[in-house]
Amino acid sequence: MSTEPKVRDAVYSLLREFGLTTLFGNPGSTELPMYREFPGDFRYVLGLQESVVVAMADGFAQARRDAALVNLHSAIGVGHAMGSIFTAYRNQTPLVITAGQQARSLLTLEPFLFSEQAAQLPKPYVKWSSEPALAADVPAAIARAYFIAMQAPRGPTFVSIPVDDWDRPGPQVAPRTVSRRTAGDPQLLAGVAAALGAARRPVIVVGASVARDDAWDETIALAEEHQASVWVSPMSARNSFPERHPLFAGFLPADRAAIVARLNGADLILVLGAPVFTYHVEGSGPHTPSGARLVQLTDDPGAAAWCPTGTSIVTNLKLGIAALLGSAPAVPRTPAPTPPRAPRLAADLLTDAYLMQQIAALRPANSIVVEEAPSSRGVMHDYLPMLEPDTFHTCASGGLGHGLPAAVGVAMARPSAKVIALLGDGSAMYSIQGLWTAAELALPVAFIIVKNSSYRALEDFGRHFGISALPGLRLPHLDFCALAQSQGVHAKRVERCQDLDAALGEVFAARVPMLLEVLVK
Amino acid sequence: MSTEPKVRDAVYSLLREFGLTTLFGNPGSTELPMYREFPGDFRYVLGLQESVVVAMADGFAQARRDAALVNLHSAIGVGHAMGSIFTAYRNQTPLVITAGQQARSLLTLEPFLFSEQAAQLPKPYVKWSSEPALAADVPAAIARAYFIAMQAPRGPTFVSIPVDDWDRPGPQVAPRTVSRRTAGDPQLLAGVAAALGAARRPVIVVGASVARDDAWDETIALAEEHQASVWVSPMSARNSFPERHPLFAGFLPADRAAIVARLNGADLILVLGAPVFTYHVEGSGPHTPSGARLVQLTDDPGAAAWCPTGTSIVTNLKLGIAALLGSAPAVPRTPAPTPPRAPRLAADLLTDAYLMQQIAALRPANSIVVEEAPSSRGVMHDYLPMLEPDTFHTCASGGLGHGLPAAVGVAMARPSAKVIALLGDGSAMYSIQGLWTAAELALPVAFIIVKNSSYRALEDFGRHFGISALPGLRLPHLDFCALAQSQGVHAKRVERCQDLDAALGEVFAARVPMLLEVLVK
Repeated sequence: MSTEPKVRDAVYSLLREFGLTTLFGNPGSTELPMYREFPGDFRYVLGLQESVVVAMADGFAQARRDAALVNLHSAIGVGHAMGSIFTAYRNQTPLVITAGQQARSLLTLEPFLFSEQAAQLPKPYVKWSSEPALAADVPAAIARAYFIAMQAPRGPTFVSIPVDDWDRPGPQVAPRTVSRRTAGDPQLLAGVAAALGAARRPVIVVGASVARDDAWDETIALAEEHQASVWVSPMSARNSFPERHPLFAGFLPADRAAIVARLNGADLILVLGAPVFTYHVEGSGPHTPSGARLVQLTDDPGAAAWCPTGTSIVTNLKLGIAALLGSAPAVPRTPAPTPPRAPRLAADLLTDAYLMQQIAALRPANSIVVEEAPSSRGVMHDYLPMLEPDTFHTCASGGLGHGLPAAVGVAMARPSAKVIALLGDGSAMYSIQGLWTAAELALPVAFIIVKNSSYRALEDFGRHFGISALPGLRLPHLDFCALAQSQGVHAKRVERCQDLDAALGEVFAARVPMLLEVLVK
Repeated sequence: MSTEPKVRDAVYSLLREFGLTTLFGNPGSTELPMYREFPGDFRYVLGLQESVVVAMADGFAQARRDAALVNLHSAIGVGHAMGSIFTAYRNQTPLVITAGQQARSLLTLEPFLFSEQAAQLPKPYVKWSSEPALAADVPAAIARAYFIAMQAPRGPTFVSIPVDDWDRPGPQVAPRTVSRRTAGDPQLLAGVAAALGAARRPVIVVGASVARDDAWDETIALAEEHQASVWVSPMSARNSFPERHPLFAGFLPADRAAIVARLNGADLILVLGAPVFTYHVEGSGPHTPSGARLVQLTDDPGAAAWCPTGTSIVTNLKLGIAALLGSAPAVPRTPAPTPPRAPRLAADLLTDAYLMQQIAALRPANSIVVEEAPSSRGVMHDYLPMLEPDTFHTCASGGLGHGLPAAVGVAMARPSAKVIALLGDGSAMYSIQGLWTAAELALPVAFIIVKNSSYRALEDFGRHFGISALPGLRLPHLDFCALAQSQGVHAKRVERCQDLDAALGEVFAARVPMLLEVLVK
């Protein structure tokens, strides 16, 4: 037998150099030779459906600030994963996704499990997609996929690999340094710094890229230097500013006129790491209040290009914000008054708001919230403030099915933190299979189901369209405790306020995964 | 207010004319205005994840031999559905899939829930995909989608609809007659009929399009006229010939040399409604035994074009086979001996083979098997023969997650038949949410889980590659009875042969959905 290095050897060697030794997947026959002599220093994490596999990898990648590795089964696995790949693309999460393909000698014969136009299937929600023309090109394609995934704005990339390639000769690929971030145009940034110093009433809007680029401290410093109110951009998928800071102003709604009303009075709007703006409903009129100049710092050249107003500077956020520091105004400004807090709720009605309030009171220090409870997002913002960096994740796509498995991935990456998955019942059902992986890995995630037995957010949103009766919104007859226990996860149901604190205490203290099914009014 | 007809009115009117009054979906905000004043003669069938939604529709469409209607949530719903859309494409199942899109006024602003390049997302696994340029074009686009879905080879089509379109003026579209089938070239068919009559030893290979085109009787008549042995094409997704008929020869494996060995001695190989051939593993040498001429009748022009050998005739199968009848040979042929049957198994070891044998003994008349238990497919063929037309469905894509929800769809379409879903444990977990819809609709499906606590088919297939140890194949700690009960489905576990018959009797007699978890050795 030849001792020439095989594609498989070259790929594992490369992945090891990149630190990509955790592989998320669900296997199929077209990938099996990838696992011949699976290296002992690699870990395989099994998800029971590919939407779960990719969402776990997404959470893992976000929490590690590095790419995660996924392997899927030819067309069917990639197909099942497409919703989660879309979400990862919107989340700007770097994923290197490989997929199986039938043997090269069969591809003209439309074989069983054939992925037709394999590189086409994941589009448009991957940054790069390829099926190498030769087996020997596979290691370099994976290197390229990794480098592209890690370039700003980060995102998923895809390589389709015929099953016979793994045992063919493959050249070792030496890892290279490929830059991952860019600094903004210094002249434009200097102009913005000067404008900030001269502004009468600057306001800051923060988005998820502040968190992704680890610019938490710089953002606080900039806000304090200018005594600028800080708003969170609409539907932001990460927390980017301490939500009880005196300068914290609140969360912008995804509605044009409402944003203009909130920002009214500002003469400079500095948007950091967010689109301008993410709208959910139609609107008209200007995007910003009259008299305000808008400046956007973004790591996304596309978002800079479609931004309908103002100046956009493409930059890593940490570098860009740091470049703005040190331009304090000549005369110190009077900060806007801190907005009033939501009133404290009594233990008389078990609402989602009350649940959020008690989670805030009892959550362990440094615990991380992974949220997918759309109808409770408003009360979560009111009653469950995020105070520390990297302690909040939700999905940027607005889809369901991400939160439960993403929490599993975050927990894998942050073993010393308690991860709290805050899930609607409709959301949890989308990816209920993720509980099994949490149980198998004994990850101490606290799964909290906000059970209202409906797609409540849609009931609410129907009113926006003036629709009172809608089909397909009721979710009766689901027993989440049994769904958890059937997959090896301990579970408890809470129906009354007086039982909530003890149950939260138990789930927060648990050293294994545990689910709390909370029936809210 | 204007009384001009709206897009919504025109679409429902058209769908009613087409008989598409059952709508499978999972709603999102970008579709809500479609459901304003949802017509009372339409039925909404909710699935808890889009892969389940589309697979239910697939089963429903197959069993009705008509298109099924699906509505999905913008990019995320289509994404989650892509695995099942791929399977529907391989199944040649006609589906008219509509999806929500953000409002037209927002599309330049990359809004929340935006489906970027919406018509691109489902490619390459839809026959046609469009986002109409104008709201008023939506009704005609849906008509076109229906006509294309129903043309041979049938398959899914896709229309992306901006949320604001539903309330805009829309012209009524009159339904038209658009042909759905074509007859084969008469000269070529006459030549084949003559060759059949003159052949020394003709052999027939049947595929799924025989079942799709309702050519069961014609196929039996042709085989009997020529005393031709009948093989089932590799991995056929439907039953197309009575599997205890004296001329029934067996199931061809998805392996080139093995097919040649099975067909050896034939001088004419007539392939009816199948690719030539569906291979799972690499092979070399000829595709047919030496001295044999191959003729393919297919409804798929693409399959005719890539077929590596012989004559291919594009035709509806019912019409094409009927055209071959009446060319009986001058001298009657001696049929090949009927192959030996698998030996009867004693009630001592609860294997999947024993389970199949007992299902065959106890299944109700006219019951329909929907199978997704890949490692048990061989023993199913040995011990659970399909004897009647339209009583077997599996997925043509080789993916997991189709069978459970497809059985729900078949049961909706065939209320007088008992539907038996024969599922591996790994398969069932892919779409376990489908049980909830079965329970809500009180469909008396018999879900039978062949529980071997692993992806057994992959363990077996690993040996093909000489791999003994593979990661990610073990599925311990799953309680399918609890998974069923937690969604409102009755359930029972069987661990011993002596308990099996009574349990099967109960599940086959049940008037509600019921799950049997059978632990096999």
